[in-house]
Amino acid sequence: MSENLDSINDGFMDPRPANFVPLSPLSFIRRAATIFGSYDAWIYGNRQASWAECYGRAVRLASAVQKAGVRPGGVVTLIAANTPEMFEAQFGVAMAGAVLNTVNIRLDTETLSYILDHADSQLLITDAAFADRVGPALAQSARADIPVIDIVDQQEPASAAGTRLGSLNYEAFLATGDADFDWQLPADEWQAMCLNYTSGTSGRPKGVVYHHRGAYLMAMGTVPAWDVPAHPTYLYTVPMFHCNGWGHAWMLALLAGRAVLTRTLNAEMIFDLLHRYRIDHFGGAPIILGMLVNADPAIRKKPDWPVKVMTAGAPPPAAILEKTEELGFEVMQVYGLTETFGHTVQSAWLRDWDQLDFSARAAIKARQGVCFPHTEGLEVLDTKTGQPVPADGETLGEAVIRSNTVMKGYHKNAEATEASMAGGYFRSGDLAVRHPDGHIEVKDRLKDIIISGGENISSVELEGVLYRHPAVGFAAVVAMPDEKWGESPCAFIELKDGAEAEEADILGFCRAHLAGFKMPKKVVFGELPKTATGKIQKFELRARLQQ
Amino acid sequence: MSENLDSINDGFMDPRPANFVPLSPLSFIRRAATIFGSYDAWIYGNRQASWAECYGRAVRLASAVQKAGVRPGGVVTLIAANTPEMFEAQFGVAMAGAVLNTVNIRLDTETLSYILDHADSQLLITDAAFADRVGPALAQSARADIPVIDIVDQQEPASAAGTRLGSLNYEAFLATGDADFDWQLPADEWQAMCLNYTSGTSGRPKGVVYHHRGAYLMAMGTVPAWDVPAHPTYLYTVPMFHCNGWGHAWMLALLAGRAVLTRTLNAEMIFDLLHRYRIDHFGGAPIILGMLVNADPAIRKKPDWPVKVMTAGAPPPAAILEKTEELGFEVMQVYGLTETFGHTVQSAWLRDWDQLDFSARAAIKARQGVCFPHTEGLEVLDTKTGQPVPADGETLGEAVIRSNTVMKGYHKNAEATEASMAGGYFRSGDLAVRHPDGHIEVKDRLKDIIISGGENISSVELEGVLYRHPAVGFAAVVAMPDEKWGESPCAFIELKDGAEAEEADILGFCRAHLAGFKMPKKVVFGELPKTATGKIQKFELRARLQQ
Repeated sequence: MSENLDSINDGFMDPRPANFVPLSPLSFIRRAATIFGSYDAWIYGNRQASWAECYGRAVRLASAVQKAGVRPGGVVTLIAANTPEMFEAQFGVAMAGAVLNTVNIRLDTETLSYILDHADSQLLITDAAFADRVGPALAQSARADIPVIDIVDQQEPASAAGTRLGSLNYEAFLATGDADFDWQLPADEWQAMCLNYTSGTSGRPKGVVYHHRGAYLMAMGTVPAWDVPAHPTYLYTVPMFHCNGWGHAWMLALLAGRAVLTRTLNAEMIFDLLHRYRIDHFGGAPIILGMLVNADPAIRKKPDWPVKVMTAGAPPPAAILEKTEELGFEVMQVYGLTETFGHTVQSAWLRDWDQLDFSARAAIKARQGVCFPHTEGLEVLDTKTGQPVPADGETLGEAVIRSNTVMKGYHKNAEATEASMAGGYFRSGDLAVRHPDGHIEVKDRLKDIIISGGENISSVELEGVLYRHPAVGFAAVVAMPDEKWGESPCAFIELKDGAEAEEADILGFCRAHLAGFKMPKKVVFGELPKTATGKIQKFELRARLQQ
Repeated sequence: MSENLDSINDGFMDPRPANFVPLSPLSFIRRAATIFGSYDAWIYGNRQASWAECYGRAVRLASAVQKAGVRPGGVVTLIAANTPEMFEAQFGVAMAGAVLNTVNIRLDTETLSYILDHADSQLLITDAAFADRVGPALAQSARADIPVIDIVDQQEPASAAGTRLGSLNYEAFLATGDADFDWQLPADEWQAMCLNYTSGTSGRPKGVVYHHRGAYLMAMGTVPAWDVPAHPTYLYTVPMFHCNGWGHAWMLALLAGRAVLTRTLNAEMIFDLLHRYRIDHFGGAPIILGMLVNADPAIRKKPDWPVKVMTAGAPPPAAILEKTEELGFEVMQVYGLTETFGHTVQSAWLRDWDQLDFSARAAIKARQGVCFPHTEGLEVLDTKTGQPVPADGETLGEAVIRSNTVMKGYHKNAEATEASMAGGYFRSGDLAVRHPDGHIEVKDRLKDIIISGGENISSVELEGVLYRHPAVGFAAVVAMPDEKWGESPCAFIELKDGAEAEEADILGFCRAHLAGFKMPKKVVFGELPKTATGKIQKFELRARLQQ
């Protein structure tokens, strides 16, 4: 028998241009523009663009970026709200072979300056509305002499009247680009595409580098997992400076969907847009859901078509979930980190669960769940032994993720990169349990767990109880130094507008729902500090306790 | 300014296990079994399996294949109908690191023998129903001493009573495998996964090698393009020995969908299964659609839910399309070849076209269309200059495709591999035009075009006219040697049951619809030779003209 087992993978069959093309979401916008060029790509106030127009603007942007001197692999920093410029930059900057660095618009001057320096930014595109912080940040950075382009948004007084930091506004900059610029896919799908700085709750923010392959797969995998149909209408409530808006701009290009963009958000605006454009998908932190369900009944108009909501950042409290469902929204919690391009874990739903009563369903929806299709591994590892914890719903371990949507690494930080991915998984830093059905539930940040008298107390569990109190608007529990127990829980509470409650009410409510050793030792009332994405800033609360 | 442009792609950020996992559809079945283990994977007569069970059987198959001595990269040949064994082999063989070689069950003994030899098959799994051809094929091949496993299908008398060629039947073979076999993803996504022989209308069949990357992307790309929801119910009318059943088994694993399997097909069975399982998707050549719309009205029960049909192999004739739509089926034509894993081009629909009258819509649906999301390039190149033809809907050129779903190459045939992909595209060998809106329309096989007096005559165009004649069931036009014109068209016609027509009727009808130089010079009546997938075998007709 003649036989050559290697021949089925013979070298003459190595990849070539006909059968191997680097994976990149840039292919999606090219396809959307070619086939569905007449379909809406985005709507923003009184402006809108078709996919052909959006593509045309992205191509011009790419050309303008190159002409401005940005070299392949160079970083373009964008400080902008969810305006059309932000949307098209998700494609145009990479078309120039450059790396898109979107920055949280609420950062302080010093951190902005640090990011411009650390990223070695070669071009800054910034909304004039933020000039009061961006101007000083640029001036005090080592990048003070790079070209600056101002986004001047006539629909926003603060932007239209804002200080111009550069010599060109964005539309004039676009006009410097060639309409027929011959952009190229990356030579390698592992090439850097985006640079996103972590929120940096401890120490300096780290620069998370995204690759084209991950961006492509993020968009592809979200479609079957969230069951998104062709040509959805998506309300972009998620800031695009956060994990590139969860990759949804790329997914919309894949589906030739329509993005409804807004600079700011409030309940009235969301309900208005929802009905005006018949929005069928949106995403947002539970804070957004809270805003909607607690809105004045006069504006809380229930849609008569299905609306799907992807929520992340914290488990949706049962009370909010219940009201959200009454509004006709189907909520799916997802979980991920900046380092995983956003969502890699989803609270997937089984049809048998439809029969359960509401509280059982809410408990399931509060779990982070299972792998997205693009996620290849999800484990909960004992922090001491490194072995998987038992699937008992109780034993805590660190959630770790293996995925083609895990970052390349931390920019200029080989040590942190190695530490984050040693052992074959990305270490989330989140403590979780695995339930008997395989779904995971995140209990706390590794550093947010409260260790009291040797017992682990999950701040998330306590917060879940507090949120069920009718007067509680926001709640956060952090560790407070305790002479006897080492640490003990301190609850910070922001009451709902017009609601009233005293410490004794809160503690009584907790006593009815919590084991004794988990009881908060102190309750503090007042407005809670929150990030741009609505996350409560626990490090601030801890700092208050130190003072 | 300190600056290091390479740093954003620094070597410390090279791929590692946490962030780079080879793309393979095997990940999909693992996920389906883990998350949706209780959902149906397949139904076949009185048998059915959940995704957990299907996965378990695939794992056992992988283990059994290894224990049978098949080495990594070794070929397992499967000669089977669309039974559960065929479905699970789409996963299990690759889980063993081996290569799945499914073979057309209607091939003759000599070709079967050639394939076993050329593939260096290490294991043969074959349905006892086909033993009369497979037995002699194996005996006369150089692989006569490899292990043989018989699929014995108790639901099919010809299989249950067929000659056993091996020492084990399939279920006993599965039982030799370990339930907890530790299968691995391929080390490299470019690794060979499947080996599919072309139909070989000219010369020996060629062995097309598929890679894991392409199989993964084929499944992923089909979902947004065909707009397939989560958990579809799919009737597997497409033979799985044909391009691995268009990759739909992999897509069903991605969506945790349900496959309804059948060994044979007829209209009554299809309508029965459609209603019994509320099938929402199926695929098949226009011959299947013809079978359905021409079925006895007593069995032609219109479903009251949406049913989507993917059709390929030939454009659906307008008459069949019209009746198919009346049955409530939404038909999408797709185009591809064995070398492209099946469909890479789709007749994508624009909502504006809904307003057109039926004939305009039928003309659009008869075009092959535009790129699937997984297809990166589609051109129509002038066969002499190699330049794109004008988008005028008239100028013929060769359709060429660039896609991550183009094969690795032809097994043991470096020369044909090189010829097929030279110039950066896979050369389809099909002649097409590009319409002004960018959609392509395949006019003919490069070798099926009829050149008469220097004019190109498209056999597809003539066939389109013939199909509109009420008495015509099947039609095929091929070139006939002609002393004066070089070649001239000869029409072969199979009349519908009970229908009558003479040559003069047909020619009169053609005269009313065709330019004079395109008129068939001869009409031959009789049954037409067809392949297992319902394609008319033109080479047979040409051979008849030579005799």
